[in-house]
Amino acid sequence: MEVSFAHAGIATTDAGALSAEYAAVFDCPIVHEEHTDGMYFLFLEIGGGYLEVIEPTEEGPITEYLDEEGSGLHHFALATDDIPAALDRAREHGVELIDERPRPGAWGHDVAFLHPASTGGVLFEFVESA
Amino acid sequence: MEVSFAHAGIATTDAGALSAEYAAVFDCPIVHEEHTDGMYFLFLEIGGGYLEVIEPTEEGPITEYLDEEGSGLHHFALATDDIPAALDRAREHGVELIDERPRPGAWGHDVAFLHPASTGGVLFEFVESA
Repeated sequence: MEVSFAHAGIATTDAGALSAEYAAVFDCPIVHEEHTDGMYFLFLEIGGGYLEVIEPTEEGPITEYLDEEGSGLHHFALATDDIPAALDRAREHGVELIDERPRPGAWGHDVAFLHPASTGGVLFEFVESA
Repeated sequence: MEVSFAHAGIATTDAGALSAEYAAVFDCPIVHEEHTDGMYFLFLEIGGGYLEVIEPTEEGPITEYLDEEGSGLHHFALATDDIPAALDRAREHGVELIDERPRPGAWGHDVAFLHPASTGGVLFEFVESA
């Protein structure tokens, strides 16, 4: 198994404005946007991966996060070509899983999240690499 | 100017234990460790960059962060071959700088941080690429 950088997930209340700022400040293009599962996603391409800017459009875990923590770094996503194997390995090492198996996520990729309580407070996501 | 993924910075109270867990769970090697500026750093290599695990060994901004937020994602670092130009560009777009010019950081790289108040709550770091 090998994991590599996929994206940093950033939660905010105005994804359009923040993405436009990042595009200007970091000179990186917005390459994808979509509405999925009550969230508005924008992806900016940086070398080696993406910044994923997320704005909730319905009540859910991201609105809870924003209420408690405010805008900021929400999760860190690792690409792998075998999410089930990555989840098995995490489970074997005592990591609590949010998703027991891959599920459809943004941009047509399967994803699965690990619980931050067992990973030093970091919400890690596995993303299926193409 | 082009930026690319450098590392995700993760603050915690026991960097050795958390790095060992990440190495096991993600099957990625610990490739560097050092004590610098009152902090203990461990770097794990993932495809495309690193996880930087940070434990404060003296009182400072990381101990304040841990007291307020607990262990978790602390910053996101972007590699650039021209930090002064990247800082100029950020300043021109209204971003408040923590570091007005590059300064020595971990692993022998020059670094500079942007203030999270002007970047959607995300603490971004520029790291000089080799």
